[in-house]
Formats: sequence, C-alpha cells, structure tokens
Amino acid sequence: MRDEEEGQDRFENRPRQRYGARGEFDFINSIRRQALRRGRKVSSSLIPDTSSLLFGIGDDAAVFEQREGFDTVITTDLLVEEIDFRLTTTRPRPLGHKALAVSLSDIAAMGARPRFALLSIGVPHAVWRSSFLDQFYEGFFALADRYHVALIGGDVSRTPEKIVIDSILIGDAPHHRAVLRRGARPGDHIFVTGELGGSGLGLRLLEDSRYHRLAPHPVIEGAIRRHRRPEPRVHWGAVLGEEGLATSMIDISDGLSSDLAHLCHESRVGAMVDARRIPIDPLVAGLCAKLQLDPLEIALDDGEDFELLFTVHPHNLARLPKRIGEVPATYIGDVTDEPHKIVLYEGARFRRLKPGGFNHFHGKV
Amino acid sequence: MRDEEEGQDRFENRPRQRYGARGEFDFINSIRRQALRRGRKVSSSLIPDTSSLLFGIGDDAAVFEQREGFDTVITTDLLVEEIDFRLTTTRPRPLGHKALAVSLSDIAAMGARPRFALLSIGVPHAVWRSSFLDQFYEGFFALADRYHVALIGGDVSRTPEKIVIDSILIGDAPHHRAVLRRGARPGDHIFVTGELGGSGLGLRLLEDSRYHRLAPHPVIEGAIRRHRRPEPRVHWGAVLGEEGLATSMIDISDGLSSDLAHLCHESRVGAMVDARRIPIDPLVAGLCAKLQLDPLEIALDDGEDFELLFTVHPHNLARLPKRIGEVPATYIGDVTDEPHKIVLYEGARFRRLKPGGFNHFHGKV
Repeated sequence: MRDEEEGQDRFENRPRQRYGARGEFDFINSIRRQALRRGRKVSSSLIPDTSSLLFGIGDDAAVFEQREGFDTVITTDLLVEEIDFRLTTTRPRPLGHKALAVSLSDIAAMGARPRFALLSIGVPHAVWRSSFLDQFYEGFFALADRYHVALIGGDVSRTPEKIVIDSILIGDAPHHRAVLRRGARPGDHIFVTGELGGSGLGLRLLEDSRYHRLAPHPVIEGAIRRHRRPEPRVHWGAVLGEEGLATSMIDISDGLSSDLAHLCHESRVGAMVDARRIPIDPLVAGLCAKLQLDPLEIALDDGEDFELLFTVHPHNLARLPKRIGEVPATYIGDVTDEPHKIVLYEGARFRRLKPGGFNHFHGKV
Repeated sequence: MRDEEEGQDRFENRPRQRYGARGEFDFINSIRRQALRRGRKVSSSLIPDTSSLLFGIGDDAAVFEQREGFDTVITTDLLVEEIDFRLTTTRPRPLGHKALAVSLSDIAAMGARPRFALLSIGVPHAVWRSSFLDQFYEGFFALADRYHVALIGGDVSRTPEKIVIDSILIGDAPHHRAVLRRGARPGDHIFVTGELGGSGLGLRLLEDSRYHRLAPHPVIEGAIRRHRRPEPRVHWGAVLGEEGLATSMIDISDGLSSDLAHLCHESRVGAMVDARRIPIDPLVAGLCAKLQLDPLEIALDDGEDFELLFTVHPHNLARLPKRIGEVPATYIGDVTDEPHKIVLYEGARFRRLKPGGFNHFHGKV
C-alpha cells in the first residue's frame, strides 16, 4: 500500500468536475509528484516519522499508521482573503509559508512534533490561471521541508471571487505528554520564546506608508518580513512536550496580553509579569522612537508573533534549555493563585494587564 | 487531560480577534458544549472509539490516542457557496448534513470507520448574525450522532461575502486494511451499493422548475431530498474494509461512469458493465418518462449519489452480505485485463462507456 509516483491522480474526488479538462488534473499531479519527491527525501534522512505514511495524495483519503504510546494532535486554520491577508500586500510564496506556519505554531504550542499536512484551497478562475498556486506551494513546501512535514492530501476548488485556504496539520506527542493551556499552577515560572512585537510593527509598516520615510529600508524590510514570514517555534514546542518541561503552553497569535489571559483563564490562575523582562524585538525598540510608538505596547498587544508562551514548575527550571538553536526563552514572570488577575509591574509601578490584542488586529492579519 | 465542560473556550486561537466581543466566544462555547454532551452520550454507549479522545475543542489543537494495529484515515472536503451550493436552493440544516456526509462517504470508500470531525467555517457578517450557523450545526450533529462521530475542533472565521466550509474527517481502519482505488484485478466482480440517479434527478428538479408540474409533489420532494441529504454508506464501507472483502473501492461523487474510470485507471484494468443490472433509483425510473430523460444516462453520468463502487475477488463472493440494513449491494459487471477499456453492454449491444459525470455538474452541487 506504499505510495507510488505512477499514475494520474487527484487530491480528492470532486475537484475535477469543477475545473474540468486537463488543467486541474495536471496541477494535482504536479503537487502529488512534489509531495512524493519530498517524501522520499525525508524518508532517506534519519527522521523515522514519515515511514508510517501508507498512502498520501491520490485516493478518497490519506492513510497513516498509528503507533502505540503516541497521541495524535490535529489543528486546522482557515485563512480568508481580505480578512487574513490582502493580495495587495501579500505575495503568494510568503502566503504559502504563513499558511503552514500558523498551523506549525499550533502544533508546537501543544508540545507536539509536526508530521503530516493537508491543504484545502479555493481560488477564483483568474488566480487559477496565474502562477499564484505554484508560488504558494513553493512557499508551503520550503517550510514543510525544514520540519520534515509531508503533504498527504487536501482539496482544490473554485471560488466565485476570493481565495480561501484551510491548513490542516497533524502532529505526534508521546502519550499524555501533549501540553494544554490548563496546566499552569501558582508558583510556576512564565517564559516566552524569541522576541515580541516584530510582526505587529511589520503590519503597521505595511498598512501605513507614512512610516516608510522614517526608517532605513533594511529595517523596514526586516519588520515586514517578520510579519509575512513568521518562524514557528517547532523545536521549542517539541522539546518542551517530549521532556515534560512545560505545565501549560499557548502560542502568541492574538498578542501576549490576550494569550496570557487565555492561558490564565484555562488554568484558573493569575500572573505577575515584569515589564522590564519582556523581550522586545530589537527592530521594534529601534524604530518606535522615530515612529512615536510605545514598544512595550506593541510587544504586549500586537499579535502574530507566533512565539510560545509557557509555564515551568520550579523543579524543572534547571532542566530548561536557555536557548534552542538561536532562539532563547526568557523568564517574564510568575503564576499566582488569583484567578484572572494579571498584573504588569515595572519597578515599583503596578497595573492590571488587560487583553488588548484583538483590537489592533480586527479582521486582518 | 480528559476533556471537561467547564471553562470558557474556543475552537482555536484566532477567531476571537475577528468577530471581537462576546458573540463568537459564546458561539464557540455553545458548539463546545454540544460536542461534549454528545461525546458523553457516545462514550456511555458501547462504542469504544471515542474513549481515546484526550482533548477536543478548546486548545490550540485536539488530541487523541493512537492505537497499535490501526491506521488513521483522513479526508478534507471544501464546500464553497455559489460553487458547491446556493443559498437560494439550500437550507442550512441540510447543508450541515451534507458537509459531513461527503466526508463520511470518503472515509467509507477507504473501508474505514469514522471517528473524529473538525469543521473550519467562514461566514460573512450577515450570516453570522442570523440563525444560519445554529441550524447548520444541528444538521451536522444529527448526522454525526448517527455514526458516533465526535466534533473535536475547527476554526471559525469571517469572510467578505460568501460562505466557505471545510469538513475534515478522521477514521480508523485495522492496519493495512484500508481499501484503495488501485487494488482491482481482472476477474473481480464489480458491485455498487444502493441505487443511482436520485441525486442527479433532484438537482435537475431544483434547477429547472418547468419539471415541477410534471410530477406529484411527494415524488419531487423525494428526489430533491436525495440530492440535499445524501446518505453516506458508512456501515457498508466499514464492513468491506474490516472483513477484507473489497479489493478496491471509490465513492460515487462524480457519477458511475467517471468514478468507475478513476478506479480502473488506478488499478490499470478495464471493466464490462451490464446496463440492465445497474440499480436505478425508483424515483428516477418513475419520473424520467414524464420528463423525457433517459434514466440510464442519469444513473451513469449524474454525480453525488454517494454510493460505494467496489470490486470483490471471486473467492470472497460467498462472504459478501446481500444487504446491510436496508441497503443492498448489486453486482453490475466484471473487471477485465484491458486497461482503460470500459464497456457497457445491454443484451447483445455493446458500447464504450466514457466518463460523463463532470459535464453535468460543472461548478455546482
């Protein structure tokens, strides 16, 4: 039942009737061939995971083997044109990257290791006839390759007007090792990976060109890149889960203030956060003075950094890596026993930290 | 890590920022509560499957346990307004039914048993404010309950204008028992479940009101219902897979002529089909004379019947059930060793059967 490259095939049963003719048949075949070629590359490396793929693209469904002692983790993310991205400011290759990145971040936030992806995608006729999908899949596959994720299925459809993408990602965690939002306990330390605010600044720069004359081009490009091509913390997530280091975890998609509130709500705890410890992206720190923005506010409330926010029991602090690859984890505060009370302090000044993320991001990425 | 009803929660991390405010929070909570209530109902029955659900709606991803000796089967189906359905002819409850039915049919066509569903759904603001989603989920859950399928996650988003639904379904098959399209061998017998043409006739009636004065109302309603609320052959699929009875299988979504061509293509075989044995829906047989349509053509070429088309090795014919519940399986022909050559005969008359399904269904359900 192992997958083979031969034979014409499709993602799925229905698409052909929608596009008719050769075009879509060829397209799905090309995606299938790419997926298979990459699958072989992966299985010839030392990653054992994809060896359990029994059948990928080309039947009514994909099939993979279950393994005793593991749990399956699955997430789905819907990206809608004009809501989550705009074609005027987003090119197809970074969009392919981002479609997978948001799902990788969800799997990482569960302490799981990504394995298999499916991609449902609907495009209007004009987009279908352009090179959009080729470039989109290039971006998708480039990121998938880095983490040995195999594309095993999906659906391709026409839409009347706008592009829609549903990214489905499946991961593995050792049995009962998946990390939920609800496990934080008073006394746990709170950590965040990487640096915050870069994506939010990038979005501001994308949406308001007045800012552009205020900063050097490479700095602006760097911030925009941070927004367009987020780096999910795949290795951090897998290590925290597999080593049993995190008591709770969430990825920062709405913004630190909002996502910490989610985590505390689920765990029925509160938090004390030291404003001076929050790791602010150097690009943000450097540009904000010129742009008359508050870097702390951006780091707290802007979304889509896709860093991991997690809690660690004091007993495990010594085992926690300082960094994985180039990416540090920074201690920013402590879990308290006052449910829903999240306090931000800066030296002797204290204030309640309210979820502020979604205001800035309403209706768009 | 077992799921609990307590606590506010969400399908996913991002939706809240899109709708803001309480509305969506409440909505996701209500879906979560429904999913949990149904989950309990299922696990209190004698179905052991959902006992391995570790965490459903309410975190970055859902988690379930892997079981040695089983394979996971996963499919995704994208339904787009104006392409796959029209709000003028489709009510939300049957649409919820159909969104799950098409995926159940895919899982059945793999010889697998459905277990877990995820649902990504994007709606414009006006639809969000209506009762559309409540009714949609009612239809979805009513069908899910019948087959003990648990909703374990999804994503809810806004769209600029049209509704989009991605239905994701996960099933189980005993290891190496999933049934692919490629396993048919010369000499195998070809079977189809149920009866064909009802959905196609229903669509014609929906789209052309001239037909309506030609037939009694209950007959028209019956055909339209067959189109709107297809019955996936879940039990047939599971039995054929688990008992190792089918050498190959596909579900009839494009139409018998097209889907038999897919199956023969994948298996590199041909087929001889006896036109007189093709089970035509009695509604079709009854109405076609009045409507001046050829019932055989409808049964061959119209899509979306969601019956199962499968092949059986002669050694296994004695073990094959005649029917499961009310649904028969009918022998319609034989697999031959001439790749791609599919012949239809009626007594002494023979003709090549060309895939005809997608012509009739281009761009709509």
